[in-house]
Amino acid sequence: MGSSERPLTRASIEAAHALIKPHIHSTPVLTNTTLSNLASTPQTPEALHGTPWEGQKPATPKVRLFFKCENFQRIGAFKVRGAFHAVIRLIEEQGIEEVRRRGVVTHSSGNHAQALALAAKTFSIPAHIVMPKISTPSKIAGTQAQGAIVHFSGSTSQEREAVVADVVAKTGATLIPPYDHPDIILGQGTMALELQEEAAELMNKKPELGIHGESSKGLDALIAPCGGGGMLSGNAIACHDTGIKVFGAEPSFEGGDDARRGVAAGERVTTVKTLTIADGLRTPLGEITWKIISDATYVASLYGVTEQNIKDAMKLVLERMKCFVEPSAVVGLATILYNEDFRKMVEREAGEEGWNIGVVFSGGNTTIEAITKIFADVPAAKAEREEGAVGSDGRRVAENVAG
Amino acid sequence: MGSSERPLTRASIEAAHALIKPHIHSTPVLTNTTLSNLASTPQTPEALHGTPWEGQKPATPKVRLFFKCENFQRIGAFKVRGAFHAVIRLIEEQGIEEVRRRGVVTHSSGNHAQALALAAKTFSIPAHIVMPKISTPSKIAGTQAQGAIVHFSGSTSQEREAVVADVVAKTGATLIPPYDHPDIILGQGTMALELQEEAAELMNKKPELGIHGESSKGLDALIAPCGGGGMLSGNAIACHDTGIKVFGAEPSFEGGDDARRGVAAGERVTTVKTLTIADGLRTPLGEITWKIISDATYVASLYGVTEQNIKDAMKLVLERMKCFVEPSAVVGLATILYNEDFRKMVEREAGEEGWNIGVVFSGGNTTIEAITKIFADVPAAKAEREEGAVGSDGRRVAENVAG
Repeated sequence: MGSSERPLTRASIEAAHALIKPHIHSTPVLTNTTLSNLASTPQTPEALHGTPWEGQKPATPKVRLFFKCENFQRIGAFKVRGAFHAVIRLIEEQGIEEVRRRGVVTHSSGNHAQALALAAKTFSIPAHIVMPKISTPSKIAGTQAQGAIVHFSGSTSQEREAVVADVVAKTGATLIPPYDHPDIILGQGTMALELQEEAAELMNKKPELGIHGESSKGLDALIAPCGGGGMLSGNAIACHDTGIKVFGAEPSFEGGDDARRGVAAGERVTTVKTLTIADGLRTPLGEITWKIISDATYVASLYGVTEQNIKDAMKLVLERMKCFVEPSAVVGLATILYNEDFRKMVEREAGEEGWNIGVVFSGGNTTIEAITKIFADVPAAKAEREEGAVGSDGRRVAENVAG
Repeated sequence: MGSSERPLTRASIEAAHALIKPHIHSTPVLTNTTLSNLASTPQTPEALHGTPWEGQKPATPKVRLFFKCENFQRIGAFKVRGAFHAVIRLIEEQGIEEVRRRGVVTHSSGNHAQALALAAKTFSIPAHIVMPKISTPSKIAGTQAQGAIVHFSGSTSQEREAVVADVVAKTGATLIPPYDHPDIILGQGTMALELQEEAAELMNKKPELGIHGESSKGLDALIAPCGGGGMLSGNAIACHDTGIKVFGAEPSFEGGDDARRGVAAGERVTTVKTLTIADGLRTPLGEITWKIISDATYVASLYGVTEQNIKDAMKLVLERMKCFVEPSAVVGLATILYNEDFRKMVEREAGEEGWNIGVVFSGGNTTIEAITKIFADVPAAKAEREEGAVGSDGRRVAENVAG
């Protein structure tokens, strides 16, 4: 493949954007006064009980949040950006007839499979999707409904890769991996271009949303979820040398914060086994994404959040913002609201002026059934606090206002 | 009050819009390919089992849907439109000092109370809210957090009215009722102006969304939920003589379709006792709203939907559109998807060209907890159908695509 010819730069992301724009939604950037105020209010000392910050003075960062709603994206998640970019580049390189003859293949049962199936269908290209036999029937049928050819495999990565190799040998299909691929990374980064532009537009329209002294100057920072790292890398490349600091957020449950731990140790963590509710973020970084994410000039720092943090943030986004998001989507907001390391850093670096932070909501592919399960075990103490109209994070909430 | 001087006309709604615009959100109008396609696909004969249309040929209406998302409105529902309008008109009539001295009062534990409290707070006017003693503590605290003065009453309407009368006697506060009031009706109608304009804009940008032969010509119809009827009346007045047909939708459970029944009988139904999950629509029409809604030149017809229809529509809006809405919000969409009387009427009247239908999502004030309860009793047959990736309404769903 010729993707090595494309440098991992903002210019390459701008080129990617021009290519995929007709096929993706330019998703809205939303603001929410309640959430920006909540994030700018110190947590109560009680909320820090049992956390690493117990007994410390809660931070008072000043932030104004701009949410990039990729849950409204086609197939319900950002993954179509990378998939369309990779497929269009493949067509450029091999020619459409050749790609139609050979097809594309990936192993995934999630959003990337749906995204690749949609991109392939758009150009009448066969898409082979390798899925574990134990996938839920609705996911299998959903992928087939997109016109993809489903191949079944065992559940281990070796078993999946064997089936992929078999498909490649038989059909000549090109493997489009879910994240560790330059064209995927460049495609995902396109959301940062839109986010910057839309946030600046919003600030021009409503200067009170992001004032800096006299003039509004756009985003100061961006925070995005990190699983395999394709999307975080893409955003970091798009923001490199723009003055916008980029941060990554991960679930810390059962070691799901592998990128953070790897960067701390100076070595990539290559295996992760976590059953975090943020099921899109259970993956370790790849080789390419590690190189970018471990470089502090690209990603300033990484933060972990607990399962309860994710639930609390998700509840706020659903009930206050009225946006339907999946658990993986809210780890950035959870970091801003509940991680005192992040909050102290913002207080220190942003000072009195505060920061305009772009927050990526990566997707909304969950179900009422899944949400019911996730929230079935809300601790009694928390339910009680809520009866007294206190935010689930222990802070008093002033207004039940969306927007 | 001087509201009787304002005729119930589109011009009065335009005047209301100019007054309230600085205080409300101009909420987005969203489209969704999956839902428009689903609505344009006939239901299966099986889906009609056990309905009044069992054994009949399912209709094939052609519709393109434009969703007015008042769930993104301030306080999470359209009610701020009427509340701000009524308060601003009161200030015009009495003068701000007088209104600040006397205050405003209403009896409600729902969205209207929150809306009136917010509008009053905005102008530093005391708001007295009469709530049943048995209201949930979080609702009471939430209303107090808005700065309102809460007065407790018994649960019957006589008991509430007695407390209101007492507040009026002691303070001179002006009663702002939740729906049966010209300024409330005119305020709610402002959403129709935005919906028409935004839908036309969308069609200009993407002509494939609403093509009529060669040219796109805006909305053909509008459907809105009907409880007390303030919002439906307002929309009907805004669309009167524009060529846009207006329809009302109600929950039929335990006689919740009182407006439809009243119009059929030629006499207003004055009491309703239903525990429909569409809890914002448990109210009978008022005298003013009845006059408008029973006039076929304003509201062409009314339709009822079942509790299961409401759940199915809500599931689609959450999981496919990624919008967090309350059950009352989706009765319009449920009518379009599942009520064969409506669908046959559209097939007949709209013909090959089809209709561009504006669909009002009235609000999003529900909780994960409430949704969990509502969906706890999904029938087994339905769960099975879904496992096979068949829409919960029995139709095959082509794409899990948002937008």
